[in-house]
Amino acid sequence: MKISLLTIGDEICIGQIVNTNAAWMAEACAKEGWRVVAHSVVGDDLPQILSEFERLLSLTDIVLITGGLGPTHDDRTKTALLEYLHDTLALHEPTLAHLTALFQRFGRELSERNAAQALLPTTCTPLQNDKGTAAGMWFTLGAAHSETHGEVGKRHAGKILVSMPGVPHEMKHLMEERVIPRLRERAVGEEVMLYRTLMTTGIVESSLADLIGDVDALLEGQELAFLPSASGVKLRITVTAATRTNAEGLLSRIDERIRGRAGRYIYGVDGQSYDNILGQKLKEKGMTLAVAESCTGGLLGATLTNMRGSSAYFLGGVQCYSNEAKVNMVGVSPETLRQHGAVSQEVAMELAAGIQARFQADIGVSITGIAGPDGGTPEKPVGTIWVGICAKNHAPFAQKFSTGTDRAINRERAVMAAMQLVYKQISE
Amino acid sequence: MKISLLTIGDEICIGQIVNTNAAWMAEACAKEGWRVVAHSVVGDDLPQILSEFERLLSLTDIVLITGGLGPTHDDRTKTALLEYLHDTLALHEPTLAHLTALFQRFGRELSERNAAQALLPTTCTPLQNDKGTAAGMWFTLGAAHSETHGEVGKRHAGKILVSMPGVPHEMKHLMEERVIPRLRERAVGEEVMLYRTLMTTGIVESSLADLIGDVDALLEGQELAFLPSASGVKLRITVTAATRTNAEGLLSRIDERIRGRAGRYIYGVDGQSYDNILGQKLKEKGMTLAVAESCTGGLLGATLTNMRGSSAYFLGGVQCYSNEAKVNMVGVSPETLRQHGAVSQEVAMELAAGIQARFQADIGVSITGIAGPDGGTPEKPVGTIWVGICAKNHAPFAQKFSTGTDRAINRERAVMAAMQLVYKQISE
Repeated sequence: MKISLLTIGDEICIGQIVNTNAAWMAEACAKEGWRVVAHSVVGDDLPQILSEFERLLSLTDIVLITGGLGPTHDDRTKTALLEYLHDTLALHEPTLAHLTALFQRFGRELSERNAAQALLPTTCTPLQNDKGTAAGMWFTLGAAHSETHGEVGKRHAGKILVSMPGVPHEMKHLMEERVIPRLRERAVGEEVMLYRTLMTTGIVESSLADLIGDVDALLEGQELAFLPSASGVKLRITVTAATRTNAEGLLSRIDERIRGRAGRYIYGVDGQSYDNILGQKLKEKGMTLAVAESCTGGLLGATLTNMRGSSAYFLGGVQCYSNEAKVNMVGVSPETLRQHGAVSQEVAMELAAGIQARFQADIGVSITGIAGPDGGTPEKPVGTIWVGICAKNHAPFAQKFSTGTDRAINRERAVMAAMQLVYKQISE
Repeated sequence: MKISLLTIGDEICIGQIVNTNAAWMAEACAKEGWRVVAHSVVGDDLPQILSEFERLLSLTDIVLITGGLGPTHDDRTKTALLEYLHDTLALHEPTLAHLTALFQRFGRELSERNAAQALLPTTCTPLQNDKGTAAGMWFTLGAAHSETHGEVGKRHAGKILVSMPGVPHEMKHLMEERVIPRLRERAVGEEVMLYRTLMTTGIVESSLADLIGDVDALLEGQELAFLPSASGVKLRITVTAATRTNAEGLLSRIDERIRGRAGRYIYGVDGQSYDNILGQKLKEKGMTLAVAESCTGGLLGATLTNMRGSSAYFLGGVQCYSNEAKVNMVGVSPETLRQHGAVSQEVAMELAAGIQARFQADIGVSITGIAGPDGGTPEKPVGTIWVGICAKNHAPFAQKFSTGTDRAINRERAVMAAMQLVYKQISE
């Protein structure tokens, strides 16, 4: 079952908003075993919207549309659907009742503009939107509407157009409650395509490819992709099979063979983030962590607390951005600071030891570095990062990392380096 | 000058990665006055890539391509370009020299796989990539290559295809240093479309519309869009003019007229992030800040230090995730914690006062809340956030915010609420 995603709206087209909806929808479809083969973004431009309806319906069985359903004049999706399908509007009483109730709940009167949102194309199945005012619309082309849909209905008979609002939580609600369940019915008997991503660290793409060697022998005709990322190379296995069970069997066999060759570099599966993996490991070991962050200003702690239940292992820390904070709040010696500078092995170790002691944590971890773009020197250029580690009842140590010149990337890499060093430390 | 963006890669198509590149590129083009009219995402599928080259070249003057340039077999962009343009590969010596030097710097030998990245299509202008191994490729269709490009070159004579790697910081480097300067030459004499977004806070969409009143009188035939967002309503002005100077003149006049009516609600312009705006304000006032963060675990500090030079106003803070840290590191009274709980007005105030005193900051700010998804109670449901503020020599106060049920969104909103409260405090 091939699916395409069409996002309508100037704000996405000109880059004011990142298209997170498309990624979310694509991932939701991938989990079901459905193949998303194209995303398209167009502005609020009627001819271009119409031409994308036609192109995407020619390319795929299902077109999922978001955006352009607001109550104002620059929202063109409904107009485009009416024109493309030769349809007309009619009052949909249940939607009007829903809108009236919704406005009552907020203590506001239903305006004429908003009441018009209960006017829906006659050939759609309305999808009630419990989270907002714009109903979803499901069109099965041709079928019961062969007269209305005319040539379009004949050309694309049985194909499906679904229109949803662009507000992310409204779209997610409609996808989860209305669209995916209906698509599941439609997908019965269709081929299933599943993915699994093995996450590696500590090895570059070309060496990993050499280590895995001849992939054809591993893959039983299925696919393997190498995806470099900040945290390491990801290996994505893609399998296609007649049933979900067969697809899952294929995934397991290929996974096992790859681990046979490169297993020691694999630390996780699928979208699992590194903080999640480290958090699990800390939980397993029953260990606690405290952080002392200079150039990252709190980003390590923020990352370590992304996961629910992180209070099981994260005690807290100090954002010791200024030198005074390093001395007064973490106990770095002013003499060490003077002698070696804030970005040094010695200060990284004292920060790690100080934070471990103050929080009585199993592990104290510190980051001190030059995130840039200012503050670099010939001896300590921008991108110089020291990560310190101090385990309870052990001497601290510190490791140096050299990242690039981009402030945001340097901070992210410093956090990743610190998490990887902690992981290595507690795994030993 | 019409531009389209083509993103190539299964990882984007199936939703493993959000397409932030497209938003960044679209915004960069919009700043130059160029009109991005379509984004397209396709997987690593040769026929589909070829068909998108053709469609997007028919629709626009410039097609900016990212992705599919890695050294492994699943990267198809170069193959597609060769096939589409009837071109062949030849060794590009400067790229080979660049790759050799790059690997030397990392103390690694240039593998055969990576050396192959110096083989480039004969009709492209190579764009040196200082940040990675995949060179950019600029093709002007037809022109000097009328024989090679054949029918495609005739059909799209003078149009431009640019291929860049998908790694964000490599793409940004190529766009900024190589692509945009070349496109500027090409854009001379073309119509210019510019945007300016005025960011408002503290007023709802309909009241703002009433305040601004009759827009036709303001706009000289140009456009104004109202865009609601989490931080407030954004007003986007769009102008089209023959020259950049004219367009900028129009923008300034319209901007001024809108400010004349709603100026006191406008706190920033364009994509300026709130941390940036707050940072500027703190710098102007010569004030310093310290933070005490519970449920955000460091995210407020991380956000406040996003900007270069943030050490001018950010002293640091304590990530007081555990109750012990609130008591031992910030000085909250155990009695207050016992009586009111960690998520309370009283604890928020003691945290703000404690952190202000410990860092000797002009402002202490605290966040304590229930980010979820666990830990909610009927009296304090998930999404309950207290923000505390304590200015030097003043009594602390705290304000309650109620956000939603999503952990990540709750943490972001808590940070935004804290920054807005600090801004308000120092503006008074």
